[in-house]
Amino acid sequence: MIFDALRQQVKNQTDESLLHLISILPDHAPQLKAAMQHALLVGGKRMRPLLVNLVGNTLDVPTSDQLTISMAIECVHAYSLVHDDLPAMDDDELRRGQPTCHIAFNEATAILAGDALQTLAFTILADHPMSEFGHAQRARLVSLLAKAAGYLGMCGGQAIDLDSTGKNVSLSRLTELHQLKTGALLCSCVEMITLVSPEVSIKDRAQFIEFARLIGLAFQIQDDILDVEGDAGQLGKSTGSDIAQGKMTFPALLGMDNAKKELAQLHERALQALDSLPYNTEYLVAFTDLMVKRNY
Amino acid sequence: MIFDALRQQVKNQTDESLLHLISILPDHAPQLKAAMQHALLVGGKRMRPLLVNLVGNTLDVPTSDQLTISMAIECVHAYSLVHDDLPAMDDDELRRGQPTCHIAFNEATAILAGDALQTLAFTILADHPMSEFGHAQRARLVSLLAKAAGYLGMCGGQAIDLDSTGKNVSLSRLTELHQLKTGALLCSCVEMITLVSPEVSIKDRAQFIEFARLIGLAFQIQDDILDVEGDAGQLGKSTGSDIAQGKMTFPALLGMDNAKKELAQLHERALQALDSLPYNTEYLVAFTDLMVKRNY
Repeated sequence: MIFDALRQQVKNQTDESLLHLISILPDHAPQLKAAMQHALLVGGKRMRPLLVNLVGNTLDVPTSDQLTISMAIECVHAYSLVHDDLPAMDDDELRRGQPTCHIAFNEATAILAGDALQTLAFTILADHPMSEFGHAQRARLVSLLAKAAGYLGMCGGQAIDLDSTGKNVSLSRLTELHQLKTGALLCSCVEMITLVSPEVSIKDRAQFIEFARLIGLAFQIQDDILDVEGDAGQLGKSTGSDIAQGKMTFPALLGMDNAKKELAQLHERALQALDSLPYNTEYLVAFTDLMVKRNY
Repeated sequence: MIFDALRQQVKNQTDESLLHLISILPDHAPQLKAAMQHALLVGGKRMRPLLVNLVGNTLDVPTSDQLTISMAIECVHAYSLVHDDLPAMDDDELRRGQPTCHIAFNEATAILAGDALQTLAFTILADHPMSEFGHAQRARLVSLLAKAAGYLGMCGGQAIDLDSTGKNVSLSRLTELHQLKTGALLCSCVEMITLVSPEVSIKDRAQFIEFARLIGLAFQIQDDILDVEGDAGQLGKSTGSDIAQGKMTFPALLGMDNAKKELAQLHERALQALDSLPYNTEYLVAFTDLMVKRNY
């Protein structure tokens, strides 16, 4: 299968699985249920499930384990977007060209939908079908996802982001911010899927995780560049929002040329990390190019 | 040890363990860390850890397992209070006589503190010390806590509460609301601690859980009664808030006399449930009396 077809297949499968997940919930709180569905299904690119799938296929991890891990990660990702968009946070009314959750519903429902989606992520890791090997790792998967999502990861990074807005921050602090805010969850995709592979060596696992760390940071630098140079129509959101919100970015801190050099260097190092692995990483190379060269 | 001394001991041990839990977090997001500590430690009665302890002692569950379960539950309980107090939800400025989290810090930090406390609950279940038997149950504990906290429990109940405010609701809907909003987490205390007991029979476990269901509902009816007849000073919060907020209550729906009769009946049934168990339940009887006859 060519890469683009695989990518579309993963997106479709993820969308269908998430829709099914919500549809089987009972109807005692219909508005909350609808808000959870809205948050999960409003046009995500499903980059994280794709990464889980590509690494999982490379290591012959069964589809059930791939899907369980992907769905849990997408629930955490979706919840974080709902809460980040709230008026008290980034106060965004549009995401992917659609009304954000608190606009489509109301603020209280959006807070609850985020809360319930975070819980759902852990329900999935605890309960959804997995191979015998994967099943034995459930508690460690919960540990990895919780570490990536909480104070030591995403929530901590968002707190640093709030605290840094309107201030000068150092390159190391900006890097820490993004490694926690977005990098940790991306790394957890690879940490989790490699954990449920009986075959991967400790050394190769570390190399896969280093690869994820590099593309996570590259992704963020590209995000910052697109906020300056991108096309609002293609992005599905307005550009210039970082500057408008007083957020420090890599181009603002390093200058645009140096930010692009940094991005190219991370891209190169990510490809080297793949190259050192004893697997066919053709699709992971394509994924890396997609992450770094995307214009949306 | 007499009951009151045990109760104080459990409270002290829970407070110390939670304080330690926060103190060992790194300092990359100091305000978020402080907000999490505020939320966890602002004078909770620790009724849930007491229930875990009493049932755990009855079934000879090791202290490590009791404490791990209690801390996880208190993190979920604390997160739910922080989010429930937000301006978009109940908009409360005081809790237990202290400023609520978004007043002591700010709204964005309170949202994040709640989020990070929910995550922390699952970190605790996945990582904190447990007996060998308890360790083998970690994934099932995650499943039970997530079910109690999410759409099928607390979040679903809070959504029904928001949806019901200012409306007439039936007794069955009001009961469903409270069974989900507060009952599910109280039940999960007993579901979790009995799960890590190697000795309890299926029948006795079901009886313990039925007991928890009955006192959960009794607790809520007493809460509604106190909101009408209680003393604001002793409660640490203003009375009459249910009516002011347009919330349906058991006294409003049944009349005060019938609400008190219903409470007495639930109390009696809870004691019967204990009586049918082949254990010394003296302290659980004292706990039941405390839950039902409390004036704060």
